[in-house]
Amino acid sequence: MITLDKIYHASLVLKEVIRRTDLIYAPQINPGCEIYLKPENLQLTGSFKVRGAYYKISQLSDEEKSRGVIACSAGNHAQGVALGATKNGIKSLICLPAGAPISKVEATKKYGAEVCLVDGVYDDAYQKALQLKEERGYTFVHPFDDDDVIAGQGSIGLELLDQLPDVEAIIVPVGGGGLISGVAFAVKALNPNIKVYGVQAVGAPSMVQSIAHKHIERLPAVKTIADGIAVKEPGKNTFDICSKYVDDIVTVSDDEISTAILSLIEQQKLVAEGAGAVAVAAAMFNKLPIKGKKVICLVSGGNIDVTILSRVINRGLQKSGRSYVLTVELLDRPGQLVGVTSIIARMGANVISVHHERAGKTTDINACYLQVVLETRNQEHIDNIREELIRSGYHVIS
Amino acid sequence: MITLDKIYHASLVLKEVIRRTDLIYAPQINPGCEIYLKPENLQLTGSFKVRGAYYKISQLSDEEKSRGVIACSAGNHAQGVALGATKNGIKSLICLPAGAPISKVEATKKYGAEVCLVDGVYDDAYQKALQLKEERGYTFVHPFDDDDVIAGQGSIGLELLDQLPDVEAIIVPVGGGGLISGVAFAVKALNPNIKVYGVQAVGAPSMVQSIAHKHIERLPAVKTIADGIAVKEPGKNTFDICSKYVDDIVTVSDDEISTAILSLIEQQKLVAEGAGAVAVAAAMFNKLPIKGKKVICLVSGGNIDVTILSRVINRGLQKSGRSYVLTVELLDRPGQLVGVTSIIARMGANVISVHHERAGKTTDINACYLQVVLETRNQEHIDNIREELIRSGYHVIS
Repeated sequence: MITLDKIYHASLVLKEVIRRTDLIYAPQINPGCEIYLKPENLQLTGSFKVRGAYYKISQLSDEEKSRGVIACSAGNHAQGVALGATKNGIKSLICLPAGAPISKVEATKKYGAEVCLVDGVYDDAYQKALQLKEERGYTFVHPFDDDDVIAGQGSIGLELLDQLPDVEAIIVPVGGGGLISGVAFAVKALNPNIKVYGVQAVGAPSMVQSIAHKHIERLPAVKTIADGIAVKEPGKNTFDICSKYVDDIVTVSDDEISTAILSLIEQQKLVAEGAGAVAVAAAMFNKLPIKGKKVICLVSGGNIDVTILSRVINRGLQKSGRSYVLTVELLDRPGQLVGVTSIIARMGANVISVHHERAGKTTDINACYLQVVLETRNQEHIDNIREELIRSGYHVIS
Repeated sequence: MITLDKIYHASLVLKEVIRRTDLIYAPQINPGCEIYLKPENLQLTGSFKVRGAYYKISQLSDEEKSRGVIACSAGNHAQGVALGATKNGIKSLICLPAGAPISKVEATKKYGAEVCLVDGVYDDAYQKALQLKEERGYTFVHPFDDDDVIAGQGSIGLELLDQLPDVEAIIVPVGGGGLISGVAFAVKALNPNIKVYGVQAVGAPSMVQSIAHKHIERLPAVKTIADGIAVKEPGKNTFDICSKYVDDIVTVSDDEISTAILSLIEQQKLVAEGAGAVAVAAAMFNKLPIKGKKVICLVSGGNIDVTILSRVINRGLQKSGRSYVLTVELLDRPGQLVGVTSIIARMGANVISVHHERAGKTTDINACYLQVVLETRNQEHIDNIREELIRSGYHVIS
């Protein structure tokens, strides 16, 4: 059973191992309230997961420790368990699907784990982990539905109360519910007036639905860029704790998450992964009653594949009107290109790239397409450029 | 004249305004020494510049304050002066070349400055700023060659000694030399045993050359992705202070800087701009005698345009062997594509994108090019893939 004592104990055990991440004032996220970030992306292994994993492993018996631990994850949990085991001086084995991104496999090895690549998908890796656990006596470290793991994550709640005692609301990402269970339990035990809100991705609302229907539900599928919280089913313990202590759980879309990631990069110089940015997205897009309040958004992790990061940046720029892919149909005759580009220049947009193509199944044989990627100020700026082109007789396709 | 007293005073004045950035342990940067980062990219305005600007402005007379300040910059100095003035309750005017990136113009406005866009390049904006200073009596805030500005930056030196008293070496980015002058003066005054090293970009080695030749030299041109330190000529004060107190200044290439930016993103979840990453690059690529030492790398700023960030990420991935653009010439007959991609899959590389083109001036009319962007582990992995393709009879072009 989770208790405040256990969370205090976890906090004490973790003190020598983990980083006490600073609280960062971030007024630009939402000018309507006073926002602080708890950047657990700056935590060792790049996410909060090492807290729960380390504490869990530290509580094993000597006999269990001697046999080592096993986990199944392609993400933050794998790295947390790997480092948690290494810092406890024991061995760890992480089962991963063979197609996992190379960067994640390498990171997991770097923290000292042995990696077992399993042909197939996540479920195959999970089955293999269970089989190895049986055969070799490893202790299985659950990513969220475990009291010690929850207590480890709860150490964040204690830090928050110490760092900003008059905080009024805390916003926390929710996947399986381990993080928010620990934080909500600690915070509510010490000050029940502080609101604790959860955030899930629109494409993976397992806890939201389970709580709405008052029993645990399994989603048939999940789909979101926030892979760290793409969980089909909440845990039993975490469901009970969230039902009791969490004030509300809302959802954010992938576009909102992308915009939040971009804001964190540009305004705060922090790299967050999708799951790490959902609390910020909820605050930015006014999903919660926090107007005028002193709020902490937990940025839970920063392990985003850099190739995905590039795509997210582009998406975020487009969604916020800072980038626009303009497509214009031109008649294939001299002067058309200079006409369009003159208007763009006069309207104060910067050209990032130009693609000019003669072809297209549906066009006039004499027509061609001009596609220009523009750096723009905002949606209004884009609208003005489009209107000006149309007024000048150009056929703007998008 | 710069004195330790003045730096202490600046430190006191700044206390209520700026953020005391945390020191972050970052062992992965270079396993041969014990590295800490001073993340001034997390400072207000995204760079250390606000320290010097705020202190300078705070020391103006009431009469000078009433007339406001002027500066000429498209970068961190503009934002530092804008916020410094706003926090001092006075007005600021920033002259920028009209072609400056929209994001920088918007950021400068956001911090409360009036922006004057000047047709032409940087020098035109500078002339306009001087003209307005004469006409309207603004105080010109120099970006580096000013005692108060240097004292403000020196507050970082005091923080470092407080945060890590037994530091053995401090590595600092160098453009005009304001930052390193303040830091070196403070550190050497309190503990002359601590080494203070500077880093410039290979394409803008103004301080390096001036010190080597023992007099101030002006470079005819500068070219580097580290635009924040692309300075043609050091200041008079900063040249004197660097000559006296800095132990050595080295240079790093744009590729080394890109790799450092990528490392900071992936390992530390921190966004640094080119200038902000040069100290880390120098430590990564063993440019300095720091083996076995306790070292602080100053990450001076994080204001990098996100479109440039995307390009830097790609460059960094390629340079570190984590991404490879493979080009193979294929005969235009069935089965060629499957042959190449089978080898790639067997060798464990992930395919990011494929481009297949029939054409090319120099090729056989029956030939075509296959260009595959691969995610790879390292240079050795790339070499193995290339060898395997060649062994199987494919014509690998690059």
